[in-house]
Amino acid sequence: MAWPLLDALQTPADLRRLGPAELRALCAELRERINGVVRETGGHLGPNLGAVELIVAAHLVFDLDKDRLVFDVGHQAYAHKLLTGRHRSFDTLRQSGGVSGYPHPGESPFDVFRSGHASTAISTAAGLLEAFASKPETRDRKVLALVGDGSLTGGMAFEGLNHAGHLKKNLIVLLNDNRMSISPTVGALSAYFNRLRNLPQARTIQQDVRRFIERIPRIGGELSEAAGVLRRQGIHLMNPGQFFIDLGFEYLGPVEGHQLERLVEALRLARATEGPVLIHILTEKGKGYKPHPKGEESYGPHALSPGQRVKEEAAASGVVAPAAAPAPLSWSKAFARTLANAARRDPRVCALTAAMEEGTALEGFHKEFPERYYDVGICEQHAVGFAAGLAAAGMRPVFAVYSTFLQRAFDQIFHDVALQGRLPVIFCIDRGGLVGDDGPSHHGVYDIAYLRLFPNLLVLAPKDEEELEAMMAFALAQDYPCAIRYPRDSVPAAGTFPPPEPVELGRMETLRRGREVCLIAYGAVAATALRAAERLAPEGIDLTVVNARFVRPLDLQGLAELSKGHRAILTLEEGALPGGFGSAVAEGLADLQLMPSRFRRLGIPDRFIEHAPRADQLAECGLDIDGVARAVRELLRS
Amino acid sequence: MAWPLLDALQTPADLRRLGPAELRALCAELRERINGVVRETGGHLGPNLGAVELIVAAHLVFDLDKDRLVFDVGHQAYAHKLLTGRHRSFDTLRQSGGVSGYPHPGESPFDVFRSGHASTAISTAAGLLEAFASKPETRDRKVLALVGDGSLTGGMAFEGLNHAGHLKKNLIVLLNDNRMSISPTVGALSAYFNRLRNLPQARTIQQDVRRFIERIPRIGGELSEAAGVLRRQGIHLMNPGQFFIDLGFEYLGPVEGHQLERLVEALRLARATEGPVLIHILTEKGKGYKPHPKGEESYGPHALSPGQRVKEEAAASGVVAPAAAPAPLSWSKAFARTLANAARRDPRVCALTAAMEEGTALEGFHKEFPERYYDVGICEQHAVGFAAGLAAAGMRPVFAVYSTFLQRAFDQIFHDVALQGRLPVIFCIDRGGLVGDDGPSHHGVYDIAYLRLFPNLLVLAPKDEEELEAMMAFALAQDYPCAIRYPRDSVPAAGTFPPPEPVELGRMETLRRGREVCLIAYGAVAATALRAAERLAPEGIDLTVVNARFVRPLDLQGLAELSKGHRAILTLEEGALPGGFGSAVAEGLADLQLMPSRFRRLGIPDRFIEHAPRADQLAECGLDIDGVARAVRELLRS
Repeated sequence: MAWPLLDALQTPADLRRLGPAELRALCAELRERINGVVRETGGHLGPNLGAVELIVAAHLVFDLDKDRLVFDVGHQAYAHKLLTGRHRSFDTLRQSGGVSGYPHPGESPFDVFRSGHASTAISTAAGLLEAFASKPETRDRKVLALVGDGSLTGGMAFEGLNHAGHLKKNLIVLLNDNRMSISPTVGALSAYFNRLRNLPQARTIQQDVRRFIERIPRIGGELSEAAGVLRRQGIHLMNPGQFFIDLGFEYLGPVEGHQLERLVEALRLARATEGPVLIHILTEKGKGYKPHPKGEESYGPHALSPGQRVKEEAAASGVVAPAAAPAPLSWSKAFARTLANAARRDPRVCALTAAMEEGTALEGFHKEFPERYYDVGICEQHAVGFAAGLAAAGMRPVFAVYSTFLQRAFDQIFHDVALQGRLPVIFCIDRGGLVGDDGPSHHGVYDIAYLRLFPNLLVLAPKDEEELEAMMAFALAQDYPCAIRYPRDSVPAAGTFPPPEPVELGRMETLRRGREVCLIAYGAVAATALRAAERLAPEGIDLTVVNARFVRPLDLQGLAELSKGHRAILTLEEGALPGGFGSAVAEGLADLQLMPSRFRRLGIPDRFIEHAPRADQLAECGLDIDGVARAVRELLRS
Repeated sequence: MAWPLLDALQTPADLRRLGPAELRALCAELRERINGVVRETGGHLGPNLGAVELIVAAHLVFDLDKDRLVFDVGHQAYAHKLLTGRHRSFDTLRQSGGVSGYPHPGESPFDVFRSGHASTAISTAAGLLEAFASKPETRDRKVLALVGDGSLTGGMAFEGLNHAGHLKKNLIVLLNDNRMSISPTVGALSAYFNRLRNLPQARTIQQDVRRFIERIPRIGGELSEAAGVLRRQGIHLMNPGQFFIDLGFEYLGPVEGHQLERLVEALRLARATEGPVLIHILTEKGKGYKPHPKGEESYGPHALSPGQRVKEEAAASGVVAPAAAPAPLSWSKAFARTLANAARRDPRVCALTAAMEEGTALEGFHKEFPERYYDVGICEQHAVGFAAGLAAAGMRPVFAVYSTFLQRAFDQIFHDVALQGRLPVIFCIDRGGLVGDDGPSHHGVYDIAYLRLFPNLLVLAPKDEEELEAMMAFALAQDYPCAIRYPRDSVPAAGTFPPPEPVELGRMETLRRGREVCLIAYGAVAATALRAAERLAPEGIDLTVVNARFVRPLDLQGLAELSKGHRAILTLEEGALPGGFGSAVAEGLADLQLMPSRFRRLGIPDRFIEHAPRADQLAECGLDIDGVARAVRELLRS
């Protein structure tokens, strides 16, 4: 495939030299390039295919080296990357050292913020604009925030709209309404957008109404007040975007999001408008993606894993890998199975997700228990408050959530759950640890540290599926809230571990009894710990391996015994080192005055780990079997 | 003062036996009781005086032992407490062991959740209602969420409205619109409410419009489509609460909030309505508070400190305390002075608050630099994103915020600030530590632990005003974000400390050189550490006292030297022990293999500390001079 237009593009300003037909051809090239690369590297396909014309139009109308385009949920920036100097390197998308899957100022001055979480762009864009407006040399700059409808339901976006409407600066919000967030958007606002979509000729009708109202005869009597109100406010009230007008924005739209001319027209109008403007743009997620012949959803997958599409197509064409081993079970699916089993036994069990039905593998639960399933949209704060309410009235809510996104509800975990005392909300924390090619905005490396701060909350991590089941049963038997975390990985194969001990509050479990050196693992890394022990055994290093199970409460009695029986202790976790599991153990041993002379914490070092395959990241952090074995040797030599 | 009606009240159901005149008299008794007690004990006066009729009406119309009333920002619950069994104990308000200033299920089954933070009630109420609706025996229960307008601008409230609108259950939101949050509300939504207030006859006008539209002749031609749209949607669009209707709520109001009959009528209508309803209630903050003769704002103070009003009245009546010592300077005021000095020198400096102008002492800054002052409303998430934008475009934003409320922006600190790398946002964290009579929802005891998790962020605490100034200058000279925290207290008097060393990145400072035992203090507790050292000196215990200054980066070199020179080390912080400053030191010493055999962390124990005077809380936690001295003795004996 050749890229005549993309290859020729030096800067986005060159776009303005292209005619309408060339611009259409460029959009086709962009789609083809995105399709082709993501097919190999994996990445967010649907959102990026939907935003192609939108991004081209933004670069046509604005000088985005001075003006600024801020991306919300940065996974729709690929076309922007291709137009701003990353076409040639785009094959390295999401690879180690390659182009990031999200905006990244380190790659290009056209990228303003790193962004991977939702609902932040209106706030950051409003701040940029305010600062630009304060200086004569930047006063004329425009700032655009590109927001998806799913991210607009996040509370921070609303806070940003409310303040930007108050500031009255010329902020331009591009609402990319694809009727989807990550899963199809839920919530009343989504229904509102659907109503707006059903007014395709809204602006024409508005013109008619204006003329109609102008002709209302100026009569006195009973109806005059109403007529006056209509005359004064009718046009205003007829605007389909009244919701945004109430927040201080001009509303333009809806605009067809794949017609470049319409988009350019709307953006020019917005550029010329005084005060904040929201352009409501209707797009199709996955526009230009050729659907898989076997029933894939028509808007294309939200995201592909590396090589996924290649494999799917091979399967569809009848090329079946000979005697393929069954795919290993992911932790997400093990969780979903565990939860469904629990829900079958216990009618109080219900499930919550914040727009992550697929990611947290809850599709089956949704189908089987529609009455006990809540997708609240990208609203983690509300999800936790809502769960608190459910639990207070006797339900057993289980919030399945990515570790990194649960950060959004840190205060609600404290205020609405832990502070309440006996309130049995269960947090099932997916993507606890390194997530691979999504990079640092998506790693779930802080949850151990931030969840172990609060009284009443029990904080656990299982080593395998069987223990996940036992921990779910344990959590459902508690009066207190519990958090259970697991990584973005497969569950260890059966037989990895010795027969388990029962899960008891705040008790660790010994997996292997050795001498002198003890390795205490938190969660799924217990498998790595055991393997490292096996590797070290021939060297005469005989490790004790312990499965911690709880970081809160920590098994202080167990720690004391371990310290007395070993001259060196190491901790192992797939979490950031500051404040994490190893930190809790260091606190415990120090408090007990039983810190051994040799102690070391293994975990994710105190810096941001860039995108790369998960296995590479684990190796980089010394969290693979080699790394752990090496660390043990080093500690013994020290 | 006698309380004939309050004294006779056994349960809130008794209210229904009272006639209109008695109910009015009861409201007067409630106001008098609140005024009288808060005058002595301190507490939130304005919000509670404004909500009296509202709460009486809710108890009249609903059976709140089965139905549920959930309070947002719980500081408006006093009348509810007086009606539900806490009239006799109300004199103990906010005292040790006495009635809490916030709803507390431990006090009464009529209190549903502990709540002190804003914007949470709609979510928790929606969860309660959903769980009630799932069981036949509770299906008929009603749930009310009492929300203030300031808290409605918080993103979580919007998330809750959006989901509750989608769930379509009969949630009743009482919007207590007093035109104020804690400071006067800002934001476009606030302007929207003001427009609604200016439609006092809105519902009457709506009737007129309905009749007017019904009479539009059914003509063909150019105008027919417009007429049809008006006919179908006109009534709907004329509703002043369209904003809430778009979110799936019925809108009732505005209702005069001090006329019991109107309130009862509106609540009955809401009770009979299918689906979610929002009642917009207009109240006066501080209704029934007699304004201070000398210019106090007419709605009464938001909150009083214990004995404050007594002192003010003595002053107003000419009784002046003989030769009163000048009031010691609060940390908040020292911060404000420091910030104003910085802003005079550096035009990039600007200040942000989330509806806490008074609490963070920014009134003077606001007056002097109105162009560089932003009150974003109760929107901490947005505040941090907005600050990120300001900083990215060259400003030096300083977000002055209570530690406990900054929890709401935990993810934004990670995603929008720390992850960006060199982004010089400054967090000035007030109320870091124990806050006294507001109790555990307001203590700021987790910030050390949650802020030290993120790369790029520098985390500091000053020992006195001079060091606060030096740290502010240090922060303004950095390319990286900084957090500076200080307690709800007075700054130590001049001369408390020896002449300071310059503030250098990640370097601690020695305040006193002793032998054998070293006490490392983080922040303002350094004064306590020095006093404890003085107390112990006559006993032959010669403490080294170190002022840590930074928890991130921690001075590992300094720690190593201290460990080599002392046989015992203690850490001292006004923060929760898990993950806190002492935890960071334990990590550091363990990593260095230099943990002394005697080590102890002094800080706030790992449980919720209930409301009491701050001095009592410090003593309870062993963080007063006695407690610290005792801990040193114990460690040496161990």
